Amino acid sequence: MNQSQKPISVNLHHSGALKFGVNVDGRRIDLNSAEAMGRAFTPMELFLVALGGCTAMDVQWIMDRQRQKLDKFDMSISGVRRMEDPRYYESIDIRYSFAGPGIRKDAVERAIRLSLEKYCSVRAMVNDSVKVNITYSISNGTQDEAVYEYGK
Amino acid sequence: MNQSQKPISVNLHHSGALKFGVNVDGRRIDLNSAEAMGRAFTPMELFLVALGGCTAMDVQWIMDRQRQKLDKFDMSISGVRRMEDPRYYESIDIRYSFAGPGIRKDAVERAIRLSLEKYCSVRAMVNDSVKVNITYSISNGTQDEAVYEYGK
Repeated sequence: MNQSQKPISVNLHHSGALKFGVNVDGRRIDLNSAEAMGRAFTPMELFLVALGGCTAMDVQWIMDRQRQKLDKFDMSISGVRRMEDPRYYESIDIRYSFAGPGIRKDAVERAIRLSLEKYCSVRAMVNDSVKVNITYSISNGTQDEAVYEYGK
Repeated sequence: MNQSQKPISVNLHHSGALKFGVNVDGRRIDLNSAEAMGRAFTPMELFLVALGGCTAMDVQWIMDRQRQKLDKFDMSISGVRRMEDPRYYESIDIRYSFAGPGIRKDAVERAIRLSLEKYCSVRAMVNDSVKVNITYSISNGTQDEAVYEYGK
């Protein structure tokens, strides 16, 4: 079994109420479901972190390959849940924000497209019940920051 | 807009290589893609934490409603990725492990079924490309620990 086929394993231990301590290969993260979160996260929060992180890493990597120098790259990702059970995200908004000299719109479009259609493993597991809306902004120093809808 | 409709928002900030710092409503988590993880997690790890945590919380809650006293409740969740891009989990194994006096198999089956079919918001977003295999073990003090396949 090579490295690629080695399973990724996570262990959860119930620690009271709806709290769980999670061990990920020796690293620790805490889950909770309620208001007083302390340093804990909810599963639905972590789902957004997983999806956003996955495509953010792809886009960073592809922009680098395209020799697009990024002085700053941020992303915001937010989701609105259904009112009925199961209360999954009926819509998710992703906004990629780039700053750097000479960043090209076509390079950004390509990076996002390759991530969402080819590379992003988390995106590939999300079904069509979830509507994903994508926008991006570019601040390249030669003009005001511009905001675009992906694919338009 | 009531509480339920308030979006859940996450902000990612690129912090070098494929590292991202993530802010979740004031709480911090770090992402990385590589071997030297420190306290960081990969997006694919967090996907498993989100899925496992979601159904673990449901099951805990439903077992409680069924007056099934749990002295211990652990879960392990592991995934095997495809070799080709996108490298999503082609299979995920979930094992729920219960210990407590008088835990009933039918109550466990019902809790898992309600979670996966009705309540678990993360599960409801995962498409059919991902095969989810479910087992559970019960140690109720009156007999040796028994392991079951869910639905069998």
